[in-house]
Amino acid sequence: MNSSEAKVTLAVDAMGSDRGAAEVVAGVSIALDVSPRGTKFLLFGKDEILQNHISKFENLQNGQVEVRHAPEVVEMDEKPIAGIKGKKNSSMALALKSVKDQEAQALLSCGNTGCLMAGSTIRLRTLEGVERPALCTIWPGRERYFTLLDAGANPHAKPYHIAQNAILGSNYARVALGLVRPKIGLLTIGTEEGKGNEMINETHSMLKEIDGSIINYSGLIEGFQIFENAVDVVVCDGFVGNIVLKACESLSKLISSFLDEELRRNALRKTGALLSKGAFKSLKQRINPEQFGGAPLLGLTQNVIKAHGSSNRNHISGAVKIALDLVQHDMLAQMAIDISEANEIFRPELFPEASAKSTE
Amino acid sequence: MNSSEAKVTLAVDAMGSDRGAAEVVAGVSIALDVSPRGTKFLLFGKDEILQNHISKFENLQNGQVEVRHAPEVVEMDEKPIAGIKGKKNSSMALALKSVKDQEAQALLSCGNTGCLMAGSTIRLRTLEGVERPALCTIWPGRERYFTLLDAGANPHAKPYHIAQNAILGSNYARVALGLVRPKIGLLTIGTEEGKGNEMINETHSMLKEIDGSIINYSGLIEGFQIFENAVDVVVCDGFVGNIVLKACESLSKLISSFLDEELRRNALRKTGALLSKGAFKSLKQRINPEQFGGAPLLGLTQNVIKAHGSSNRNHISGAVKIALDLVQHDMLAQMAIDISEANEIFRPELFPEASAKSTE
Repeated sequence: MNSSEAKVTLAVDAMGSDRGAAEVVAGVSIALDVSPRGTKFLLFGKDEILQNHISKFENLQNGQVEVRHAPEVVEMDEKPIAGIKGKKNSSMALALKSVKDQEAQALLSCGNTGCLMAGSTIRLRTLEGVERPALCTIWPGRERYFTLLDAGANPHAKPYHIAQNAILGSNYARVALGLVRPKIGLLTIGTEEGKGNEMINETHSMLKEIDGSIINYSGLIEGFQIFENAVDVVVCDGFVGNIVLKACESLSKLISSFLDEELRRNALRKTGALLSKGAFKSLKQRINPEQFGGAPLLGLTQNVIKAHGSSNRNHISGAVKIALDLVQHDMLAQMAIDISEANEIFRPELFPEASAKSTE
Repeated sequence: MNSSEAKVTLAVDAMGSDRGAAEVVAGVSIALDVSPRGTKFLLFGKDEILQNHISKFENLQNGQVEVRHAPEVVEMDEKPIAGIKGKKNSSMALALKSVKDQEAQALLSCGNTGCLMAGSTIRLRTLEGVERPALCTIWPGRERYFTLLDAGANPHAKPYHIAQNAILGSNYARVALGLVRPKIGLLTIGTEEGKGNEMINETHSMLKEIDGSIINYSGLIEGFQIFENAVDVVVCDGFVGNIVLKACESLSKLISSFLDEELRRNALRKTGALLSKGAFKSLKQRINPEQFGGAPLLGLTQNVIKAHGSSNRNHISGAVKIALDLVQHDMLAQMAIDISEANEIFRPELFPEASAKSTE
């Protein structure tokens, strides 16, 4: 290798997008132009379909893109385990295999989230000392973007899962948001100690133990503080995170459509809307930023990025960029070190019986 | 009493609003004009201050409004129990006492939420068979408004608390939203049975037991469905409900201020915004409806309505209307019947040991 930069290969599950494989291929084409030289893309899906889409983009025909035929597709309504175990020749399963075999250093998919989470956990395994992966999403805040995890990978979280999520999210925020010491907050319903539930209290204690050395913990935060950029990484269990994420996504769509309806209500408003249409376009981009089109599944031995099923080509391109960044910055290496150090500190809480014995 | 309509007396804690007592008094003035004849208002607060504000509104001087002097005020940062027990002569405590003594049939306050919840529970007690009250909020949906509870009164909820909330919310939605058989949904992260956590599964079973007879249960719903009006009453525990409520309120403010910023960015956009300003005003009213300015604390022996600390006079007036409606419709009577019937059905789950004995 001549270059000082490691050459990255990205496995792309090109099927399973709501907008079809054409949109995924178009996204890869946009991303390719801004990717480091030597980046390779393995596109998994039906050969004929993908070749047809690829033929429409000149830059996809310079040898950087390779199609890997996958005769099956994991559908959106399939159950997690059944979808991934039952369809060993699906684009998702084969893309996962290429990452497992270290042919590719990262995987991008906009397919079935449940199947991708189950498949990644089964096929790629979690980092040593991590029991459950977490889905990490990027949100718009008043002054800057912030991350929230877990957005639904682990709805049965224990305190140490949530405490580990702080480490996972902190490492991700360093790369994706370019922060040196991301501020972490634990999402709860009142910021006085002891006001939340038992799980919050235990997690809060664990986070304080690793504050300063491994993470930069700001403490408890309430729901209204997240959009005010009180912190850079919001941690919560997957049950709360998924509900908040989906409610907020849905509210944001509702407000957009109310605004749209109101602006069309009469000729005067329509004229006004035409003059200020730039404002509505900018608003949309601020609320749903295309550069953050992907959400990583953190805590695995490999980089796995989930793009929204309804991603457009710009979102896909944003997701590709995030995937490449994670590899280039070797996020996983630092994450593994941090998890290992934290587990040394957490051990008494994780194994209360063993600890009681050792101090006898 | 000559009228066929019962004459209602409403106790108003006039202190503790972020906008001051003047705004509360102005709200009462607006409400009075549209209230049933004979409605009485007891305003609790500092005599001099309240008399001064009242003197500015002609309709408040016709004998329907009475000031009750309260030398103390519960501040926003006071702890629940300390605030209510330590200040027996506060406007909140004295207003609660007037409801307890049945001098008034409902209480309205925009003061400290924690103190109001603690004070109401201690002073007024819960309905027979109800262990914990729930805070019920009204939200804007795509086609119509819906309710969500618990918005934070009980963050340590057990399945039967959440199941009871369905009954409380259903009775409230009948009066506040004018629905005959409000549809109930249990908020979770996947609508397949067994996908949520243990609490969801247990609550779901209990709700199915009373479906048809006592409530109209639609089943599990996800975060993105609430704004789509999948149901009329969303039930969840107070921890999730409070986080979702505060996150959504905050997101809604964020979007407003992004829109505002974008519309002011250049002269063209400013001109457009001026022409379509009616649209932005309507949008605001749809997102933050003034007619639903109050959130009831349900499950108590009396009607208690919490208005937002930042309520303007129209929100206060809306909250007064809701309070009077609850009394006029005698919501509490039907609620008590429904709770009692449901508890007969739930009993085995509530008291598994007693039930095991009785079937021996």
